[in-house]
Amino acid sequence: MSEEFDFQRYLDEKRTQVNEWLSDFISRRFDDRRRLCQAMAYSLMAGGKRLRPILCMASAEAVGQADDPSVLACAGALEMIHTYSLIHDDLPAMDNDRLRRGQPTCHIKFDEATAILAGDALLTLAFEIMAGLTCEHSAAASAMRQILTASGYQGIIEGQMRDIEAEGKSLDLASLKQMHQFKTGALIEAAVVSGALLGGGTDVMIDAFSEYARNIGLAFQVTDDILNVEGDPDLMGKAAGTDLKMKKSTYPGLLGLEKSRSFAGELVNNALQALAVFDNKAEPLSALAYYIIERRR
Amino acid sequence: MSEEFDFQRYLDEKRTQVNEWLSDFISRRFDDRRRLCQAMAYSLMAGGKRLRPILCMASAEAVGQADDPSVLACAGALEMIHTYSLIHDDLPAMDNDRLRRGQPTCHIKFDEATAILAGDALLTLAFEIMAGLTCEHSAAASAMRQILTASGYQGIIEGQMRDIEAEGKSLDLASLKQMHQFKTGALIEAAVVSGALLGGGTDVMIDAFSEYARNIGLAFQVTDDILNVEGDPDLMGKAAGTDLKMKKSTYPGLLGLEKSRSFAGELVNNALQALAVFDNKAEPLSALAYYIIERRR
Repeated sequence: MSEEFDFQRYLDEKRTQVNEWLSDFISRRFDDRRRLCQAMAYSLMAGGKRLRPILCMASAEAVGQADDPSVLACAGALEMIHTYSLIHDDLPAMDNDRLRRGQPTCHIKFDEATAILAGDALLTLAFEIMAGLTCEHSAAASAMRQILTASGYQGIIEGQMRDIEAEGKSLDLASLKQMHQFKTGALIEAAVVSGALLGGGTDVMIDAFSEYARNIGLAFQVTDDILNVEGDPDLMGKAAGTDLKMKKSTYPGLLGLEKSRSFAGELVNNALQALAVFDNKAEPLSALAYYIIERRR
Repeated sequence: MSEEFDFQRYLDEKRTQVNEWLSDFISRRFDDRRRLCQAMAYSLMAGGKRLRPILCMASAEAVGQADDPSVLACAGALEMIHTYSLIHDDLPAMDNDRLRRGQPTCHIKFDEATAILAGDALLTLAFEIMAGLTCEHSAAASAMRQILTASGYQGIIEGQMRDIEAEGKSLDLASLKQMHQFKTGALIEAAVVSGALLGGGTDVMIDAFSEYARNIGLAFQVTDDILNVEGDPDLMGKAAGTDLKMKKSTYPGLLGLEKSRSFAGELVNNALQALAVFDNKAEPLSALAYYIIERRR
């Protein structure tokens, strides 16, 4: 990694860009007298690492395109999809969480009906934004298809279904990995790939990025499981120890904490190897891979 | 109307085409061992008038294009969106309905979490299908944008939000119309317009179809309200009298039954006038306008 690269600053800059894009979008397009818009804006702006948008932007940069406004719009759309999935996952009929990103969950702040609708609306809005990009950017349709597949019944929704079905059951390692590939891996991969597509990446680059993304996606989930055991609820903005309480199968449960940590480290190494062919433009992606396993929230 | 035109037969033929397309899609794409796919398939194939798909197909035919496979795929996608909205509207946190299309609602047949996810998945799948069409059909992107807008926070979702907010309140006629324009009008309009777009309709034709659709969309809702008062639950496949029980504002409530009927008739006349410029290729659309106010379910 080059000495000049200040990752924390990079992360802050990108997060600010995403947040500004989202709040600008909200002020231009949402009617804040409408309850539905209030709930959508509330969940969208209630903090969050903005990991998927940042991955999308970093990946577009890595293939050479740093300033395309389509990339930022796609990044915003990805955050909307992620936020919708959190709103629905938090519902009483699902994980029944009262706290998310350190704030009351959408159904606690508003009510259940509003939360269901706000989730539906953020999902739809994300694709409205993506579909709008297809007029101005030739790769936007491919990026949109990637994100649609990752968001759907063969992506995060199937992952959440399996997560619920697995409560109280013990999954083996292969089933656990597959569930997480659906639940978090697919959208992380779509974020990286859509950025590369919008940035004009070649097929070879896209393949390398997919490999990178599949590894960090899994590393992300392993780290999430570790944090659920030993993380600080104040830092995370959500409760710890819930996996054990819900009798969920987790990496620490299957492998133990120590082996889970080294597994996450291995995955990050694989991810970095996939980036080896790129020059220092991929530095942020490398740093993001480390960040994913070293984060505290 | 030409003497040869047999509307009942037309309706049956189109409904069969839609049902065959959907069940073929399900058998090719769904894994029936997965609970999520089971729930999606259950609600999708649990009956239904298939009004939106038929409107889309009739409108493509009216501009001259009867056999484009994109039209049928778009029709299927529209039915998925409609089905998703019914699944979510029926949830306990929303309208809390146990019966839909004569069958147990999705959350009764499966459970609440599965119903929420099945709805999410059908919504996403519809746009996956539409996005797939953009590779092969130049007007598919415009059609998709129409449907996205109609489905989102400025369409059916806002309509459902207002419907819930209006419980126990009395709306005036203008607010009631606006709510229904969101809740049912927007998607009916998008169905007609997307068919015309995929069929290669000109801007003038699209405008006429929008006018037609806005009128039948409202007529549809007025008729729904009338049926909720005096309809036969066995024929409708859902309970009657629920609006009164939920203290919902309705056309019969505001205008009385007689005036509601004549209002629906007026709307259909407006719709027919909008079609006056077309030749007999628009006969099915005219017949559909009548059907909408004369239906018993």
